Amino acid sequence: MTSVRQQDHHQVPSTNDNCHVPHTIESLEESQIAIVGLGLMGGSLAGGLRHRCRSVVGVARRPDSIAVALERGLIDHGTTSLSEGVSQSNVVVLATPVRVILQQIAEIGPLLPAECLLLDLGSTKTRIVQAMAELPDHVQPLGGHPMCGKEMSGIEAAEPNIYRGATFILTPLPRTSEQALRLGRELVEAVGSRPLVISAERQDFLVGTVSHLPYLMACALVATADATTSTDPAAWKIVAGGYRDTTRVAGSDVTMMTDILLTNRDEVLAAVNVFQRQIDRLAQLVESGDGEQMRDALNQIRQERLRMYP
Amino acid sequence: MTSVRQQDHHQVPSTNDNCHVPHTIESLEESQIAIVGLGLMGGSLAGGLRHRCRSVVGVARRPDSIAVALERGLIDHGTTSLSEGVSQSNVVVLATPVRVILQQIAEIGPLLPAECLLLDLGSTKTRIVQAMAELPDHVQPLGGHPMCGKEMSGIEAAEPNIYRGATFILTPLPRTSEQALRLGRELVEAVGSRPLVISAERQDFLVGTVSHLPYLMACALVATADATTSTDPAAWKIVAGGYRDTTRVAGSDVTMMTDILLTNRDEVLAAVNVFQRQIDRLAQLVESGDGEQMRDALNQIRQERLRMYP
Repeated sequence: MTSVRQQDHHQVPSTNDNCHVPHTIESLEESQIAIVGLGLMGGSLAGGLRHRCRSVVGVARRPDSIAVALERGLIDHGTTSLSEGVSQSNVVVLATPVRVILQQIAEIGPLLPAECLLLDLGSTKTRIVQAMAELPDHVQPLGGHPMCGKEMSGIEAAEPNIYRGATFILTPLPRTSEQALRLGRELVEAVGSRPLVISAERQDFLVGTVSHLPYLMACALVATADATTSTDPAAWKIVAGGYRDTTRVAGSDVTMMTDILLTNRDEVLAAVNVFQRQIDRLAQLVESGDGEQMRDALNQIRQERLRMYP
Repeated sequence: MTSVRQQDHHQVPSTNDNCHVPHTIESLEESQIAIVGLGLMGGSLAGGLRHRCRSVVGVARRPDSIAVALERGLIDHGTTSLSEGVSQSNVVVLATPVRVILQQIAEIGPLLPAECLLLDLGSTKTRIVQAMAELPDHVQPLGGHPMCGKEMSGIEAAEPNIYRGATFILTPLPRTSEQALRLGRELVEAVGSRPLVISAERQDFLVGTVSHLPYLMACALVATADATTSTDPAAWKIVAGGYRDTTRVAGSDVTMMTDILLTNRDEVLAAVNVFQRQIDRLAQLVESGDGEQMRDALNQIRQERLRMYP
C-alpha cells in the first residue's frame, strides 16, 4: 500500500485522522473526490476537478500512475488502497474498464461514507446500473458516460481539456436523490462538459450505433487492409486522410473496448445487423452501375451527415 | 465564352497571339499550364503551381469559378473555352470528375500542341489510362492521382497546402516519354507532394481498399444512424469524436464519388466482400462473449493500425 501526498498547501484528510465527512454535501466546492483508476479518463477528470473542489484523491493499482498524476499536478493525494482512498470521500468516481467497475461496485459499498455519491465513467450503462441497484442504502449511485476520449490511453495521455464541450451522459437510478444528481451535474459542468440525463437502456442503444459500431467498422477496415493491400509496400504510402480518420478509433484501448462490447452485446449486434444491410444496399448500387440512383443515395447520405455536423 | 486575365505583370499568351509554344519543354519553370476544372483539387493545384511556372490558365464551365480563382490569385488567366485554354499550353491537367475526364480525353487530342503533357487527377486510373492510349501520337499522356483532399468541394475551398506531404500517384503509359514523366514528377514536387510511380491496375486495387471502401463504410454508418438512432434527439447530442471522424468522408463530393465507384467497380466490390467477412468475424466474437479471444483479435488490429500510423 502506498500513500503519497502532493507537497503543497492542500490539506487532505488521511485515514488516520479522526475527522468525519459531513453526511450531506451540497456543493462540489466542499467535496473530497476520489478518482478510482488513473488512466486517460480518470487522470483527465482528476486534473479538471482538482481546483474546483476541496481535494482530489487518486486511487490506482500501480504506484507509478500515482507518481505521474502527482507530478503532473492532477491529484492532491494518491493511494493504492481502495478503502483508504474512498472512506473519507463524499464523491467517488470509478474510472476503470467496465468489467472492473462491475467488480468494484460489488465490493465498494461497505467502504463508502453515508450519502456518498458513487459515479462511474463506464461506456455501457445497463449492467452497471443493475449492479448499482444492489448497493447498500447509504450510497447514492449515479451512472455516467463522458462522450469524449482519444485513442491514446494511460495517465501520460491525460489532459483535463478532453472533457471541454463534450456531452456527459448521466443515468440516475430510481433511488438516486435529487441532491446527488445535482452534485453529479455540477461535477460534469466543472470540467466543461454538458450533462445529458437519460435512461441506461436508451444510452446503450444510442452508443451501440454512434460509438461501438464505428469502432468495429474501423477495426474491420484495418483487418481488410491487413488481409489484402498491406502486403504491397505502396499501400503504406497512399493511405490518405480518409483512411486515417476512418480507422482512428481502431487504436482505442483494447481492454476498455472488449469490456464495452461484452457488456453491450445485444445492442452492438443489432447495430451491426442494420449496418450490414446498408452496406449490402450500397454494394448493390455499385454493382448495378446505375449512376443516377447511386448519386441520389449518396447525396441523401451526404445531406444527413451535414445535418449531423453542420 | 469568357476570357479574363489577372491584372498583374504576368504576360500570358492568348489565342490571338501568333507565338508558338516550344515543342520540347524540359522544365516546369518554362511551362504554361492549363488546369481544366477549377474545383477543390484543380483550384488548389493551380495556386500551388502559379509561381513555379511561366503561367497558369484556368479552364472552367462557370465564369463564376474563374472569377473566384482570379480574385484568390490561384490563376493568371481564365477561360470557359477548352480549346482556348489548352491550345497554347505545354502542360494540361484534367481536374474534373472521372467520367468527365474520360469524355475530355476523347475530345482533347486535336486541341493539344505537340509533345504536350496531358496529366489528370482522377481517383481511378485503369479506364483513364485505357482512354489515354487512344490519344494522337503527338500527346504525352500521364495518369495522376493525388492522395489528398477534404470533404468540402469547389473553388472556395481550394488551398494549395492540401498537396503538401501527400503521396501523388503517377501511372505512366508505355508510350509516355521519360521527359514527360520527369516533367510530371517536377510538377508533383512543386506543390509539395511525393510522386509514387505505379501501374494503373495496381493503384486501382490499392485505392479500392484504402480510399473507396472507407467512403462506402462511412456512408453505411451514416445510413445506419439515419435508420435507427437519429429519430432520438439525444443521439445528436452524443455523437462523439469517434463517430465524427469515422464518417467524415461521407461528406465527400457526390459526383466525384459516383464516378469513382462506377469506374472502379470490380475492385470496390472485391474490397467490400473482404470487409464483410471481417465484420462477420468480429460480430461472431462479440456474440461468443469470449473476452480472451476478442482481446487478442482487437489487439492484433490495434497493433496493425499503429504500424500504419506510428
